[in-house]
Amino acid sequence: MKHFLNADFLLQTPTAQQLYHDYAAKMPIIDYHNHLPPAEIAENKRFDNITEIWLKGDHYKWRAMRSNGVDENNITGNADDYTKFKVWAATVPYTMRNPLYHWTHLELQKPFGIADLLNESTAEEIYNRCNEKLKTLPVHSLLDYFSVEILCTTDDPCDDLRFHQQIKQSGLQVNVLPAFRPDKAMSVEDPKSFNTYVNALGAAADINISNYRLLLEALKKRHDFFHNTGCRISDHGLETMYADDFTLAQLEESFNKIRNGNKLDPKEVSRFKSATLHFICEWNAEKQWTQQFHIGALRNNNSRLLQRLGADAGVDSIGDWSVAQPMSVFFNRLDKENKLAKTIIYNNNPAHNAVYATMIGNFQDGITPGKIQFGSGWWFLDQKNGMEEQMNVLSNMGLLSRFVGMTTDSRSFLSWPRHEYFRRILCNLIGNDIENGLLPNDMAWLGKMVQDISYNNAKNYFNL
Amino acid sequence: MKHFLNADFLLQTPTAQQLYHDYAAKMPIIDYHNHLPPAEIAENKRFDNITEIWLKGDHYKWRAMRSNGVDENNITGNADDYTKFKVWAATVPYTMRNPLYHWTHLELQKPFGIADLLNESTAEEIYNRCNEKLKTLPVHSLLDYFSVEILCTTDDPCDDLRFHQQIKQSGLQVNVLPAFRPDKAMSVEDPKSFNTYVNALGAAADINISNYRLLLEALKKRHDFFHNTGCRISDHGLETMYADDFTLAQLEESFNKIRNGNKLDPKEVSRFKSATLHFICEWNAEKQWTQQFHIGALRNNNSRLLQRLGADAGVDSIGDWSVAQPMSVFFNRLDKENKLAKTIIYNNNPAHNAVYATMIGNFQDGITPGKIQFGSGWWFLDQKNGMEEQMNVLSNMGLLSRFVGMTTDSRSFLSWPRHEYFRRILCNLIGNDIENGLLPNDMAWLGKMVQDISYNNAKNYFNL
Amino acid sequence: MKHFLNADFLLQTPTAQQLYHDYAAKMPIIDYHNHLPPAEIAENKRFDNITEIWLKGDHYKWRAMRSNGVDENNITGNADDYTKFKVWAATVPYTMRNPLYHWTHLELQKPFGIADLLNESTAEEIYNRCNEKLKTLPVHSLLDYFSVEILCTTDDPCDDLRFHQQIKQSGLQVNVLPAFRPDKAMSVEDPKSFNTYVNALGAAADINISNYRLLLEALKKRHDFFHNTGCRISDHGLETMYADDFTLAQLEESFNKIRNGNKLDPKEVSRFKSATLHFICEWNAEKQWTQQFHIGALRNNNSRLLQRLGADAGVDSIGDWSVAQPMSVFFNRLDKENKLAKTIIYNNNPAHNAVYATMIGNFQDGITPGKIQFGSGWWFLDQKNGMEEQMNVLSNMGLLSRFVGMTTDSRSFLSWPRHEYFRRILCNLIGNDIENGLLPNDMAWLGKMVQDISYNNAKNYFNL
Repeated sequence: MKHFLNADFLLQTPTAQQLYHDYAAKMPIIDYHNHLPPAEIAENKRFDNITEIWLKGDHYKWRAMRSNGVDENNITGNADDYTKFKVWAATVPYTMRNPLYHWTHLELQKPFGIADLLNESTAEEIYNRCNEKLKTLPVHSLLDYFSVEILCTTDDPCDDLRFHQQIKQSGLQVNVLPAFRPDKAMSVEDPKSFNTYVNALGAAADINISNYRLLLEALKKRHDFFHNTGCRISDHGLETMYADDFTLAQLEESFNKIRNGNKLDPKEVSRFKSATLHFICEWNAEKQWTQQFHIGALRNNNSRLLQRLGADAGVDSIGDWSVAQPMSVFFNRLDKENKLAKTIIYNNNPAHNAVYATMIGNFQDGITPGKIQFGSGWWFLDQKNGMEEQMNVLSNMGLLSRFVGMTTDSRSFLSWPRHEYFRRILCNLIGNDIENGLLPNDMAWLGKMVQDISYNNAKNYFNL
Repeated sequence: MKHFLNADFLLQTPTAQQLYHDYAAKMPIIDYHNHLPPAEIAENKRFDNITEIWLKGDHYKWRAMRSNGVDENNITGNADDYTKFKVWAATVPYTMRNPLYHWTHLELQKPFGIADLLNESTAEEIYNRCNEKLKTLPVHSLLDYFSVEILCTTDDPCDDLRFHQQIKQSGLQVNVLPAFRPDKAMSVEDPKSFNTYVNALGAAADINISNYRLLLEALKKRHDFFHNTGCRISDHGLETMYADDFTLAQLEESFNKIRNGNKLDPKEVSRFKSATLHFICEWNAEKQWTQQFHIGALRNNNSRLLQRLGADAGVDSIGDWSVAQPMSVFFNRLDKENKLAKTIIYNNNPAHNAVYATMIGNFQDGITPGKIQFGSGWWFLDQKNGMEEQMNVLSNMGLLSRFVGMTTDSRSFLSWPRHEYFRRILCNLIGNDIENGLLPNDMAWLGKMVQDISYNNAKNYFNL
Repeated sequence: MKHFLNADFLLQTPTAQQLYHDYAAKMPIIDYHNHLPPAEIAENKRFDNITEIWLKGDHYKWRAMRSNGVDENNITGNADDYTKFKVWAATVPYTMRNPLYHWTHLELQKPFGIADLLNESTAEEIYNRCNEKLKTLPVHSLLDYFSVEILCTTDDPCDDLRFHQQIKQSGLQVNVLPAFRPDKAMSVEDPKSFNTYVNALGAAADINISNYRLLLEALKKRHDFFHNTGCRISDHGLETMYADDFTLAQLEESFNKIRNGNKLDPKEVSRFKSATLHFICEWNAEKQWTQQFHIGALRNNNSRLLQRLGADAGVDSIGDWSVAQPMSVFFNRLDKENKLAKTIIYNNNPAHNAVYATMIGNFQDGITPGKIQFGSGWWFLDQKNGMEEQMNVLSNMGLLSRFVGMTTDSRSFLSWPRHEYFRRILCNLIGNDIENGLLPNDMAWLGKMVQDISYNNAKNYFNL
């Protein structure tokens, strides 16, 4: 019997162990997509206690606690930080077989050096030990501890990026870069919030956005500004891919309609998104950025909690829109214009893995290896089975060897052990294949492949 | 090499064996959803032969025989009972790797004590041994043999529940309860059969159903009656979830139209179902029932056999309707009104497992642990792989520890070994995880978790 | 540790090894669906070099090279044959975990006797050894080497089948038969190419096709001609199943419209396909053919490469159309008329496996065992995981024992090792089940089952 979470955690065979310990473990981390707040990096924030850094903002844990019958007041409400930690600790044993159980103990192990299992009875001691340790672990120390080399945040086009500028000037060793996420410029479902956004964008770009053409101009100006601040990546959260036909006249008409406070019908919404996304992707290609698409989440299902807590409250789930046809049309339209940038598509519905893994093969250009990427298991798929399935499908239908690998997509400064988690799973898959005679016993090549997927491929691909 | 179907069947590791034998095996059975006929329980029916209890009404076996080239006359036709048993016996070896092969031999083992493999050459001896044994195994003895503690049938709102009342008065130790299944009150596709049903419902409720409002009133009256007879569970068989907007005026119009013998158009059908289901679910919440949704079956595909044999003829299959969006809207609408009852959703399409497993997390209320449940593998998924996938997806995207576990959904008094089958599979999953170091070796906790999923969770959840 | 690709490749247990070596290995090959050119069989073609037989026309390899950053000129362009081989060899190590890695080395092993791994450094030696060997391996020798007994090509209704007639007269031991693939007669999306096709069909059938009825008559005449030349199989490549209602008047109107150069709207297209497919399937039943449906590919996504290279350029992927409902209607309509032929449905989207595996059970007739078949893993699913999933789903939801097994669907005379690959995977699944106590240790029966799936079932089913 193997011991839980020891040095060979997840590594079932000697070959897997060798691949991880001799090859993968030592590679630095490139965390090319996450939701970390640049302000906290700039100020080198020190956290008062483990609740603050670990539970606040982590809707995965909130969701698990709600499923376990924990009152909202002890999750996101007015309860004090120790109470919140205690109810989480009491929930942890109930999360066995959920990724939270592994993540929790990996994160206690690193950076806190705690090997005990968290539960109600160990809660107090672990709370105190973590808090003591946190005094010596401000953000910059955490980045150093986890060997983070490059880190890309996620930023709205309206953002002035001053924290990124501060970080750059501070001489921090880590390369911290913004990413351009223009989702709000496409969220035309609700005229009120869209108009508020357009006004803010106009202010940021110093343009009076009186028509659709000027909306594009303002976005483009911010795209330029982001580029000048070091941004090389865009990110797009989409329910499904949008690829309707459009004319500029139609878009101007829709723009007028919504600016006058009127709701667009579903066809107009879809057309507006199709067009706006298309134009932004042209700029991504022109500037040789990498564009990311996070597709398939059905968000904010529970309007009671949405109203109380806002978005990202842990009431999102997996959607089941068809995706193959519009995705094909969308990429083909850009490819025909020779304006298809390096692209990563992230899938949130495991039933669609094969669609994604085969779609990327249609638009590889024979120049950049792995130009179009099927991204690592995302959100609900960011767990052992999800990662294994993504890698197996990618292996079977594309080239695993060219995969740019893991990114945390996290809001927490304690999530980098997920790179370790990913690498162990990767090494285990490949190690098992070697042991089973499915791959040749060529450790030089397969060790290199593991290092490529852990680090080198991302390094070369993003060229940050 | 392991021996087929011995004491450690399905239990690959010592830890899995310990979990099953020391923890799971001894728990009684709560079979909270099945299609057993209350009349046969009330009369403590004694079966003449194994064909009668085992093959009549089992469309799984019919289907397998048809695939194996067996003539319909020997399956559901006029052939004598021994002939029907013999053609089934001859088919059994051809079902290897199908759940029927395991079920068949588990059911011969318990309660018949037969360890031989069923095939053409053993058919006669096994037929005679089973028939001999059946003399001592009327329904009440079977319930006792399998330690059935609670059993919920599936009943139409028109049903007078007199067999349930008889059972209650008979002093049978097993708690036998009805469940409210109002599917026919929503089946507005065919005006003729719908109108027949509405008339029957009117008679049962003693209401002249002359408009939609009175249809609801009649249904509500039967809902009340079921409640007074001990019913605490409703059940709904749906192609996909229905969640259209509606007004009462529209529903009255549709009701009139159909009562005049006219077909509704697809939009009206969907709206009628959306509304009626919504209202029934409000009553479920008001009475603190648990509601079950069986979703995704595409029924009665073969109209030749449908006409000859009626529904449940073994010509059903898995549908592929989109389900995420209407399900979100449906549950949210009830949740906003604070009228979302305890809910179990059963999925029939394995590609949708992740959608279901993530949907439940959106509506957990932080009061009842596991209030919204992703039900056990249903129909075509009621087999080893199907159960494993359901439990793995639930584990990864929710809390397995809060799962209410297995129910047979069966029409046969010989199906309770499927609880054993389920428990072995559960113990094997968890046992393997412990052995592989994916879970801590905490047998007290994991033994309790296995017992919870086998019995305690259902006991606490349904509160019958 | 097991050695890569040795005699027990893919066979994890002694039982699996015994099943393969003692039972499966010796069975001849029935390759009932492939895309081999009859002309090259008729002329007993001898290939100049390994590039010619292995890389030309293999869009799987092209696609992998593009993903690996290889310039199109070296893939499908003007580069010389050795250069093309070298860039492929350099790509091979990057295909590890993709089926190409296994296929490549299986095909070097058989028929070339090369056990070395192909990569940049071994490219030259392997190129020369293969070319030397190819001198002794014209097509007929390859057919003999791989024990091919029956082989069905894929042919357009316009084809005069003269190469098939030549082959028949040549006394070749292998039974080479045409298959009827009338896809172009249904491709009404583009009036220009459809009209060109109708003219060609009219010439082949000697009918002036001036209306829809005559289109059917011409097709039927070719169907008759194919039958007289030994054809017993049709094949249909479909995005999804088409099963709309239609009247002949509507079809005549659509036919007129398109013959006048006008585009049909999507509804008309779907109706035209529904009707034409339905009529052809009636003829299939009348002549007791087997009909095959290859469903779910989203083709020609990249219009740049489509224009440059034509169809089958390696820019196809997996579609995600719903399929259950139209498939049910389509088969039921034929079944009601008693005109449902033996049918094999091949699925290209792994998320739909369960829909297919359950659909076939609805239309089994109780006469022909396994009359409706769920075909082996196709295209992107023609790999280890894809085959395993297809067989596991078929096992769980139907009768694996009645499966007609593998066919290559290949364009290459070197693909028959895929039958070996399939048989090893099959034996491994069954062998593991026996070792794990999931199946009884009955080698006589399970050895027979393996031989049935490898050969006997196809032999009996197609009756060629």
